[in-house]
Amino acid sequence: MSNIEKQDLIIEGKAKAVYNTTDPALVWVHNLDQATALNGKKKEAITNKAHYTNAISGLLFQYLAEQGIANHFVERLNDTDVLVKKLTMAKVEVVTRNYASGSFERKYAVPHLQELTPKVQEFYYKNDQLDDPSLNDSQILALGLASTSDIATFRSTALAVNEKLTALFAEIGIILVDFKVEYGYQADGSLLLADELSPDNMRLIDATTQVSLDKDVFRQGTGEITDVYEIVLSRLQHALHY
Amino acid sequence: MSNIEKQDLIIEGKAKAVYNTTDPALVWVHNLDQATALNGKKKEAITNKAHYTNAISGLLFQYLAEQGIANHFVERLNDTDVLVKKLTMAKVEVVTRNYASGSFERKYAVPHLQELTPKVQEFYYKNDQLDDPSLNDSQILALGLASTSDIATFRSTALAVNEKLTALFAEIGIILVDFKVEYGYQADGSLLLADELSPDNMRLIDATTQVSLDKDVFRQGTGEITDVYEIVLSRLQHALHY
Repeated sequence: MSNIEKQDLIIEGKAKAVYNTTDPALVWVHNLDQATALNGKKKEAITNKAHYTNAISGLLFQYLAEQGIANHFVERLNDTDVLVKKLTMAKVEVVTRNYASGSFERKYAVPHLQELTPKVQEFYYKNDQLDDPSLNDSQILALGLASTSDIATFRSTALAVNEKLTALFAEIGIILVDFKVEYGYQADGSLLLADELSPDNMRLIDATTQVSLDKDVFRQGTGEITDVYEIVLSRLQHALHY
Repeated sequence: MSNIEKQDLIIEGKAKAVYNTTDPALVWVHNLDQATALNGKKKEAITNKAHYTNAISGLLFQYLAEQGIANHFVERLNDTDVLVKKLTMAKVEVVTRNYASGSFERKYAVPHLQELTPKVQEFYYKNDQLDDPSLNDSQILALGLASTSDIATFRSTALAVNEKLTALFAEIGIILVDFKVEYGYQADGSLLLADELSPDNMRLIDATTQVSLDKDVFRQGTGEITDVYEIVLSRLQHALHY
């Protein structure tokens, strides 16, 4: 794919910039050395962060594709950049929770890391101005944000991802507490798993020590993001041999 | 039922007090001349309010029973009091919305009174300490607040109530914008529609003038509760001839 070239910027978000390419079906994603939390209220430049999110996300998307879960990943371009399919992003993001943490723990006063049976799935409206409010099925439909069939895919694909990633992380001594996924629509209207899969949008804890190996160290100021992302990346590389 | 006597207080809420009776299957509900809003932060004594909520709620529960929707109502005892079946109240309350208003309008920045298709239904956790947080199905199940079958009943019964009340109010020139219902468990574990059905927990607007005929006049300080509740009551009495 060495003939693909980066073109104009489409959008710059909190942690990445997305560019058109010479192939109209693909976009070029450049990860930024930047961490944000609290819907952008906390923001910091972090050297090398893009390397880790790009590497971990690439490994996880490749693993999911091998496991039969189609996604937007095409190939890693360099240390910080990745080539992915161009999609029209869905306006709903999906959080899947295996254990209570974060906003769920606070909202319902549930003990930290209490196991959740069944798994909890939450929908959020991707809308910074509205502060990403939660959504239920009838709200999604009445607001015209997605179809009934889309909603079923949001749930089932996220549950399949959860099963595969929980097993993969278990192999390397890490517990997948919760994670967020996003989807995009392909030209034929079907949904494809997209965005990023890294400790920026999942909670991971060491199965033995229970220490956080994710962006919570940044949110809570308890450690260096790159130190814990390095642990996740090196264990994944050891397990996956890509 | 004149042999039923009021016994010890079970619970006193924001707008009513509930007592045991000489019949262990029934409780005595005394409506209070009190209005609260913003989860109790705004509170005011309002002469005669109990008369209106008791009368309107009694009429609506009788009407629903006649229309085939079983509920807790047994009989009105006097101007402010009602006899109802004793139930173990469910921890989830259900809001059904025909048009955008209140928290829905604010949360999603939707135009006031935009028609909602399909109808929106929302679940809330009855928990003052947690400020009645919203709930989706998986959260209800993981928190152990109700069963899958209960959740189906929460939805279907509220939709049936919506259909019946929308038609009834339409006959008297009133639009049912949204409403909240609560349920209780009977001894056999089945759910029964309960609580209160009055302009305290529904939004009503005059079909011609669009003025509020509900607790919003208190929430927003735009009128006297008893003036608008009197309009609702007199129109209902005219239509129902009870």
